[in-house]
Amino acid sequence: MTGSSPNLQTSFADRHIGTTPADQRTMLDAVGHESLDALVRAAIPESIQAAPATHSSIPAAVGETEALAELRAKAGRNTVRRAMIGLGYHGTHTPAVIQRNVLENPSWYTAYTPYQPEISQGRLEALINFQTMVADLTGMATAGASMLDEGTAVVEGMLLARRASKVKGDAFLVDADLLPQTRALLDHRARAVGIALREFDAVSGPSDDQLDGAFGVILQYPGGSGRIVDPSSTIERVHAGGGIAVVAADLLAMTLLAAPGDLGADVAVGTSQRFGVPLGFGGPHAGYLAVRAGLERQLPGRLVGVSFDADGQMAYRLSLQTREQHIRREKATSNICTAQVLLAVMASMYAVYHGPEGLRFIAERVARTASALAAVAQEAGLGLVHDAFFDTVTLRARDRAGALVDAAREAGYLLHLVDADTFQVSVDETTTPDDVTVLAAVFGAVDVTTPATEAAVRDATTRLPSALLRESEYLTHPVFSAHRSETRMMRYLKHLADKDYALDRGMIPLGSCTMKLNAATEMAAVTWPEFANVHPFAPRADVEGYLDMIDDLETWLAEVTGYDTVSLQPNAGSQGELAGLLAIRGYHLSNGDEGRTVCLIPSSAHGTNAASAVLAGMRVVVVACDENGNVDLDDLRARVAEHGDTLAALMVTYPSTHGVYEHDIREICDAVHDAGGQVYVDGANLNALLGHARFGDFGGDVSHLNLHKTFCIPHGGGGPGVGPVAAKSHLAPFLPGHPFAQDADRRTGSVTAVGARREAHGGGPVSAAPYGSPSILPITWTYVRMMGLEGLTRATEAAVLGANYIAARLREAFPVLYTGADGLVAHECILDLRPMRDATGITVDDVAKRLVDYGFHAPTMSFPVAGTLMVEPTESEDLAELDRFVDAMLAIRAEASAVERGEWPADDNPLVHAPHTASSVISGEWAHAYTREQAVYPLPGISTRKYWPPVRRIDQAYGDRNLVCACPPVEAFA
Amino acid sequence: MTGSSPNLQTSFADRHIGTTPADQRTMLDAVGHESLDALVRAAIPESIQAAPATHSSIPAAVGETEALAELRAKAGRNTVRRAMIGLGYHGTHTPAVIQRNVLENPSWYTAYTPYQPEISQGRLEALINFQTMVADLTGMATAGASMLDEGTAVVEGMLLARRASKVKGDAFLVDADLLPQTRALLDHRARAVGIALREFDAVSGPSDDQLDGAFGVILQYPGGSGRIVDPSSTIERVHAGGGIAVVAADLLAMTLLAAPGDLGADVAVGTSQRFGVPLGFGGPHAGYLAVRAGLERQLPGRLVGVSFDADGQMAYRLSLQTREQHIRREKATSNICTAQVLLAVMASMYAVYHGPEGLRFIAERVARTASALAAVAQEAGLGLVHDAFFDTVTLRARDRAGALVDAAREAGYLLHLVDADTFQVSVDETTTPDDVTVLAAVFGAVDVTTPATEAAVRDATTRLPSALLRESEYLTHPVFSAHRSETRMMRYLKHLADKDYALDRGMIPLGSCTMKLNAATEMAAVTWPEFANVHPFAPRADVEGYLDMIDDLETWLAEVTGYDTVSLQPNAGSQGELAGLLAIRGYHLSNGDEGRTVCLIPSSAHGTNAASAVLAGMRVVVVACDENGNVDLDDLRARVAEHGDTLAALMVTYPSTHGVYEHDIREICDAVHDAGGQVYVDGANLNALLGHARFGDFGGDVSHLNLHKTFCIPHGGGGPGVGPVAAKSHLAPFLPGHPFAQDADRRTGSVTAVGARREAHGGGPVSAAPYGSPSILPITWTYVRMMGLEGLTRATEAAVLGANYIAARLREAFPVLYTGADGLVAHECILDLRPMRDATGITVDDVAKRLVDYGFHAPTMSFPVAGTLMVEPTESEDLAELDRFVDAMLAIRAEASAVERGEWPADDNPLVHAPHTASSVISGEWAHAYTREQAVYPLPGISTRKYWPPVRRIDQAYGDRNLVCACPPVEAFA
Repeated sequence: MTGSSPNLQTSFADRHIGTTPADQRTMLDAVGHESLDALVRAAIPESIQAAPATHSSIPAAVGETEALAELRAKAGRNTVRRAMIGLGYHGTHTPAVIQRNVLENPSWYTAYTPYQPEISQGRLEALINFQTMVADLTGMATAGASMLDEGTAVVEGMLLARRASKVKGDAFLVDADLLPQTRALLDHRARAVGIALREFDAVSGPSDDQLDGAFGVILQYPGGSGRIVDPSSTIERVHAGGGIAVVAADLLAMTLLAAPGDLGADVAVGTSQRFGVPLGFGGPHAGYLAVRAGLERQLPGRLVGVSFDADGQMAYRLSLQTREQHIRREKATSNICTAQVLLAVMASMYAVYHGPEGLRFIAERVARTASALAAVAQEAGLGLVHDAFFDTVTLRARDRAGALVDAAREAGYLLHLVDADTFQVSVDETTTPDDVTVLAAVFGAVDVTTPATEAAVRDATTRLPSALLRESEYLTHPVFSAHRSETRMMRYLKHLADKDYALDRGMIPLGSCTMKLNAATEMAAVTWPEFANVHPFAPRADVEGYLDMIDDLETWLAEVTGYDTVSLQPNAGSQGELAGLLAIRGYHLSNGDEGRTVCLIPSSAHGTNAASAVLAGMRVVVVACDENGNVDLDDLRARVAEHGDTLAALMVTYPSTHGVYEHDIREICDAVHDAGGQVYVDGANLNALLGHARFGDFGGDVSHLNLHKTFCIPHGGGGPGVGPVAAKSHLAPFLPGHPFAQDADRRTGSVTAVGARREAHGGGPVSAAPYGSPSILPITWTYVRMMGLEGLTRATEAAVLGANYIAARLREAFPVLYTGADGLVAHECILDLRPMRDATGITVDDVAKRLVDYGFHAPTMSFPVAGTLMVEPTESEDLAELDRFVDAMLAIRAEASAVERGEWPADDNPLVHAPHTASSVISGEWAHAYTREQAVYPLPGISTRKYWPPVRRIDQAYGDRNLVCACPPVEAFA
Repeated sequence: MTGSSPNLQTSFADRHIGTTPADQRTMLDAVGHESLDALVRAAIPESIQAAPATHSSIPAAVGETEALAELRAKAGRNTVRRAMIGLGYHGTHTPAVIQRNVLENPSWYTAYTPYQPEISQGRLEALINFQTMVADLTGMATAGASMLDEGTAVVEGMLLARRASKVKGDAFLVDADLLPQTRALLDHRARAVGIALREFDAVSGPSDDQLDGAFGVILQYPGGSGRIVDPSSTIERVHAGGGIAVVAADLLAMTLLAAPGDLGADVAVGTSQRFGVPLGFGGPHAGYLAVRAGLERQLPGRLVGVSFDADGQMAYRLSLQTREQHIRREKATSNICTAQVLLAVMASMYAVYHGPEGLRFIAERVARTASALAAVAQEAGLGLVHDAFFDTVTLRARDRAGALVDAAREAGYLLHLVDADTFQVSVDETTTPDDVTVLAAVFGAVDVTTPATEAAVRDATTRLPSALLRESEYLTHPVFSAHRSETRMMRYLKHLADKDYALDRGMIPLGSCTMKLNAATEMAAVTWPEFANVHPFAPRADVEGYLDMIDDLETWLAEVTGYDTVSLQPNAGSQGELAGLLAIRGYHLSNGDEGRTVCLIPSSAHGTNAASAVLAGMRVVVVACDENGNVDLDDLRARVAEHGDTLAALMVTYPSTHGVYEHDIREICDAVHDAGGQVYVDGANLNALLGHARFGDFGGDVSHLNLHKTFCIPHGGGGPGVGPVAAKSHLAPFLPGHPFAQDADRRTGSVTAVGARREAHGGGPVSAAPYGSPSILPITWTYVRMMGLEGLTRATEAAVLGANYIAARLREAFPVLYTGADGLVAHECILDLRPMRDATGITVDDVAKRLVDYGFHAPTMSFPVAGTLMVEPTESEDLAELDRFVDAMLAIRAEASAVERGEWPADDNPLVHAPHTASSVISGEWAHAYTREQAVYPLPGISTRKYWPPVRRIDQAYGDRNLVCACPPVEAFA
């Protein structure tokens, strides 16, 4: 370790790492090791310890100013033109009040997934607004809390259709006018799970042959070409056979057009990007999925619902969690974990701010502008391919399409070239009469002026089919009309943020979730126009800065993991897993090993592993763990032998989900390799290894990382995430490519040059956009650039020290369930609360809720072992905060003892009644065995920084039994 | 009024104005007027109503995106070079965590001045950190909560010296090496109050002749040339005669050099700009003033101190307010009102984040870099003018100085040209070895490379005189070492912000302070590098964008006030007043009217008026008011007659400080003009007139405006402010110019062309920088650009309607003290609480504190009439919020009645014990006549958005008797 420098400019690492050298000395003494180096050498198996790097692709750390200057230079290499490409990605105005108070506010972006609903009511309310908005606009009964993007939402819609359909077949009908990137994604994902796609034209509808054995249909509405076709008859025909109809609908168009629900659809999917979320070269933004009544329990991903707290007050929570992948494992129907909470919040607030009239006004102006544009194009002699459209005009220009698109680009506009004769122009809320005037000139229209265009737009008639005009109401809940002034909106956002506990209040010690600092400098570039306003299908020459940054990141991440190549496309960890497993599957297939489909997964694994394996077309076989939580090597060898040449892969997390460095990891990997299998190392716990050991060095063939864990992308209250997949070069050809990737060697089907410095990724896509969620990659780039390899290495040491310090201080009160060499844990520790429960009756749930009264977010509960808490402090917490946590845990243990001793009744003590709201200790008579002060100020000092939860403990079962997933009426709160 | 458009992009005004047309209809019914137009026509005297504008210099409103695009174009016309000019303005790195969580966080920037200390503990703590930082670094006993800039701080130091000195003379000794802009300001201000300046060289010291009759001295340390001279002997000699020694000290240098206090100084002044506050073309940033023990009660401006609350808890508050100008009126010793709170908070947090070691590290690197730079300059054949320096190197280059400065500029660096042979280079924390290398090449040094410079900087010896090296400790309080990680810092800032009530929580209905929306779009440009990183003395060609924006603003503000010209230089309203009065004085002098020194001020005027008049060298004569609060026209005529040709001016506020449109305003102005006097209209209440009447049209000769009231610059918790002075063309030559103004006709002494479209301002400066605080002018520019004249006019109507609505709803419970025509008020109303007090014993203080329990910031208390509350809702509040306030006031009135009826004892009721902290209703037994719920949840709904004050009512008298104005020891809070 290096001496710390007190100058901000020369050492970002000293600001990122919470503990000072003096703190670390104190902690090492408590842990019983001489130095950080000694600690780490004792903890990490010698067999996997990396030799100090003699050369690194990661440049030496620079200060915050220098890093931002370098990033600005890259940003300057992007060219921002007015993107009128459309295809599901549209320009939008982010209201400044939302940008400043949500996207740039740590109270929103540093929050965790709302698994602890009592301290997450603010973002849960924002999410239920999102659900209500989507359900209203699509005319469906229930919407989920967001999907990763439109493409993956369509895949989830297809999978939902298969399981809900009465048709027993493996065919899925696909609208030929589906967005092309959605189609590519659907192809890849359908193939993996044995679904056959059957394409049809929306006007004529599927043939009877096509309908036969088809469990469902997907229709794009309006179509990818902009064309609007009434989907009703196709929906009716699919329904007639018992199939399920999925409609991918544009939310802005739905303010004017009959909604999917009005037209009989069972499922609606799409994106909310154009509701105030910048293009960002493709992401992140919130996709959506909504269903008709009766399909609620089939929804993948997260769903916010309403329940009641212990005082009978209405409260929000995540509903139906037992159906999720981490619970259902290989029986799960989806592997979706991460949502796009921060972006869903932004989109919902855009709707709250504009309200139904505002959205309709925007949509009408878009439609009239598109109509005016079509008129000038026709005047200029171009042909109109479709008469009925909302925002996208498809134009015919025999042999001149390419030249016109090029000329538009010269004039500062990006259009979509369909073929030599055809191109598309898509209008959005940022399109002005000036834009139309410039394009008119490009098209060759004469005498078009901006005043004339203004008049034309004002007077234009939209080209929406009159039979499909919307009649049903939407956004009628008062929340969508109460916050129209900026002052009101600012206060509403503050009011919601104030209810929540995020990293800006204190530690969020979540095992396996690595809630570290999201530094302000790292966040700075996200809103720079050169990163925010780039369309994912912009031409290569316009995105050199982005590609350069992505190339840096791929190189750096490959180096620190010991792999040859990295794809940044997966926009969640679960998608990274899936991409990695699909790559393994592709590799086996390319070797003619069609039978290799068995995926070994240790019993301790996160449930998502199993769900992803199933979605990659694999069969899950569980491997036993020994009493220390490690993979049982004998059982592994037995399973390997048993499955022989059907063995596809082993998925293993390292360090283990038990927070321990397993010493047999090399032997484990070797056993799988010897049998022809591939080793997938889950990178969830990479924060315990960075700079000290590398997956690729000790046997991993492929891994996913979580940039939102190890690499500082904030959790955003439950998303966005980025889950890059990193692999050895033999798997590179099967990593996710994309048909529209600007980089030739990131294109689906691209030729492989194994062993080249830069490997081609030729697999099918797993995200709608070629590079996933690029607009948040500057966060990780800046982090690595300011830390350097040395800083990353130091961070690992500090994280491991923090976990061991907590383990050492709490061990007497709460046994540490698993440890490795020298009794050490890795970067997290599992505290066993079962002995306390057995002795006192106080449960892990009671402790988690009681921690709220002490001013903490609870650690991970009952994962990977029921009745335990898994604590991961990360390197960013300082010693005072670690001690505050330890003191709270010890005080809670003492409270449990008081219950055990009978000082408080088992059913009336501050633990079982936790958390306590202010109102609960103020209003009415106090009839408890403990005092009001004991309830809310259990330790000195708490009152000076008290966090007040807005609700008491929430009845989870009630909410699941009585599913309400839209904004409850205002009176419900009375 | 125009119909509202629901589209954000086409109508910012609809977002700025809180009430919808439907709300306004409801409110008009309550007020009893047909329409907004009818209301305003009834309220404003017909004789002053402006005719609708047929032409305006203000362009029609544009949306937020378009306004920012125009502003970006202006920003693009500034050229940002590395500023090494120095002269009190230095490049600095604003820590990103401070920029994001203070400067860009409405919880900090929308707060009001902490007159209600119970709900301002967060920023009071930040300010006491500032005071401690300044006191420590300067070695003084007590520092104030900030001054406007270094130049005005020196003026205040001089005035303080005069009143504290034992020497009865009017001479003040001035170091010849004073910063030149400080000297210009001092000249102007000294002349106005009859002080003679005597210049001396710091090395030789003042002559005995000079010492004779000199009440004090000002020394620059280090000098403006960078030279360091030991000030001790001069200080001793001044002390020997009983005089006062003021030292202007650089705070960063003070981490290495013996402090003014160590050297015997009585007063230290300066700036904290280089502690993380961007250059901003000159401002805003926080100046400082600190004094030795014994002079505390002489401090001008605001001072934060420590006291106790009703529970005996330590609490912060503003100390010694009775010495301030608004209380002492013409007996005041300073007219300073506004501080620079937001900037003082930033500077203090910079010190908290870096700590003493970090600051020293930065200072040492600066000093070593300057030393290395001097060495390469000497190698290149340049002469070193001074051997002892900290950061500024003065170089001699016979006849080549201009050429070298030009060459440096070409290379991207701004240096300071002293004369044909001499120039200065100033190093700051942003200076890198690369910079030195480039300058070395410019100077003609050969073979200098960056690695060589890096080594040279590392190995350099500083050029600080060894006799003056600092030995005393500083920043030893734990707050300066507890927050070194970014996580800790972020939480500390959040923790403090959470204690405070700002506009992001609810209404701040302060009469005469116009706490309206500070829109996020308006704030966006403040941190753009093209505005933030410009030195105030950069050459004209580099600041065209700034000058263009300033020209727009001057033109627009002149139009809306009916004047011919505007100066944006005054950086507070009080300075605008002073500038206007100095212009009047200059005008009379230029006419040979030396005897015109009487300034008539109505008895109802704000005390600052009188203080400013005295500082402009005038004599205050009070004019009586009639029972309606209007100027007594008969008394005015009598005073005018009495003072004849000694009459200089009348100062009058319009609408009056009583919140009423006086009908005699034209007659009043005419009476003064007829006697040869000038009319000064105080623009504090301009928000009641904009678009409907103009000062210049009904008789004003000069006015100041408050951009931080009427024009959306946020209050920042008590600053920054901008107080432009607007005048008729005959006063233009006397408006503040500046010796370094980039614009030739804004230079002190510039020739006047009366009646030209653009008037020259040739007076002396009133701010240190030529254009005052330009970096916050984009806020006002954006506001006017997005509102247009029509939007401004609508805003006035909404503001007047809001005040009349509150008056109408509260009139029965609280008599409205003053009204004009039709029983209408202007934009604010004075509620008379004296009848209630007489009946119930409940005071205005009780009501103000009780409002906190109801979730409100109190209105203005006991101004302009004791025992009243003055309420100004502004146009930005929505009807629900207005009603929430009215409901609270009515409920409080009912509580007072309960006391009157004896239901609660006079000394034990929720009013006299207000405000209630959470702890006060939770901890211990409850022994009050009212319940806990009545204490903190007095109305339904409060519990769902409860604001908890962190302390109870603070003992003001104790704090003034026992003055503690630095961070109290941590144990004090136990």
